[in-house]
Amino acid sequence: MDSKVVHLKVNYETIDQFKRFLENGLEELSMLEDLQGNLIEDNAQSPFYGVYEEGKLVARISLYPLVAEYDHYFEPPIDYLELWKLEVLPGYKGRGYGSKLVRFAQSLGKPIKTNVRFGAHDFFTKLGFQPVKYDPMRDRGENPYVWIPEGVQVELT
Amino acid sequence: MDSKVVHLKVNYETIDQFKRFLENGLEELSMLEDLQGNLIEDNAQSPFYGVYEEGKLVARISLYPLVAEYDHYFEPPIDYLELWKLEVLPGYKGRGYGSKLVRFAQSLGKPIKTNVRFGAHDFFTKLGFQPVKYDPMRDRGENPYVWIPEGVQVELT
Repeated sequence: MDSKVVHLKVNYETIDQFKRFLENGLEELSMLEDLQGNLIEDNAQSPFYGVYEEGKLVARISLYPLVAEYDHYFEPPIDYLELWKLEVLPGYKGRGYGSKLVRFAQSLGKPIKTNVRFGAHDFFTKLGFQPVKYDPMRDRGENPYVWIPEGVQVELT
Repeated sequence: MDSKVVHLKVNYETIDQFKRFLENGLEELSMLEDLQGNLIEDNAQSPFYGVYEEGKLVARISLYPLVAEYDHYFEPPIDYLELWKLEVLPGYKGRGYGSKLVRFAQSLGKPIKTNVRFGAHDFFTKLGFQPVKYDPMRDRGENPYVWIPEGVQVELT
């Protein structure tokens, strides 16, 4: 069992592993181009965390730190994490890797905001997330859910 | 054939039709709550446009006007449309409703920005969209593609 959560480095191997995931788009392409152009170092830190099984990346998540200055979700504004690209490969679902990755994010002690896709409402509410009041200008069709760590004194805007 | 693009009003019938769509979340819930609380008038304009077949909404799109002040995609900044929730119901795909809705958006004469999901690259590039250079702070895991009307003099930022 090597199913612990690891911080993924930006390198060709990681980018190759990413190809198996559905949500593979401009962000991953940009990493590859930055590597090829020597704009970032091989093995630079990425916003991605993942779970490996037998050398294969089978689940991943992206956690991007937002600074309070850009916070539109909490009052008073606070540094938080934006969570996206939570994905478990087909064949590896039902093993708790999704919730393991979210709980890892929660262990970092900051509020979290994510865009919850159709069908994932129960998954996120069981982990303590709640939907926000929709704001068209801010949310633009997203379904933002947030999680606030115990003891952190913020309200939803 | 009643397959023209119509502007959807916010009313209980529209919200009931929305239930068939996958991307039905906080935005639709917020419309319902605003109706129930008399915060908006029945038959108020919505950001949604759709195609009906025999009284059934079978395809929809949301077009949200962004003002130049909030533009982070074009240089110089310009008013544009953000396109989301483009969806055609199962059983009604392959009839050109998706491209009909996008071409309707293009007929409005403003630049368009959208977040392109896995598998929709070809659909959007055939309609003249192009991927932007990924910016982690701005794009946060999205895959932004833009379309610029002929004759409109803007560059990508």
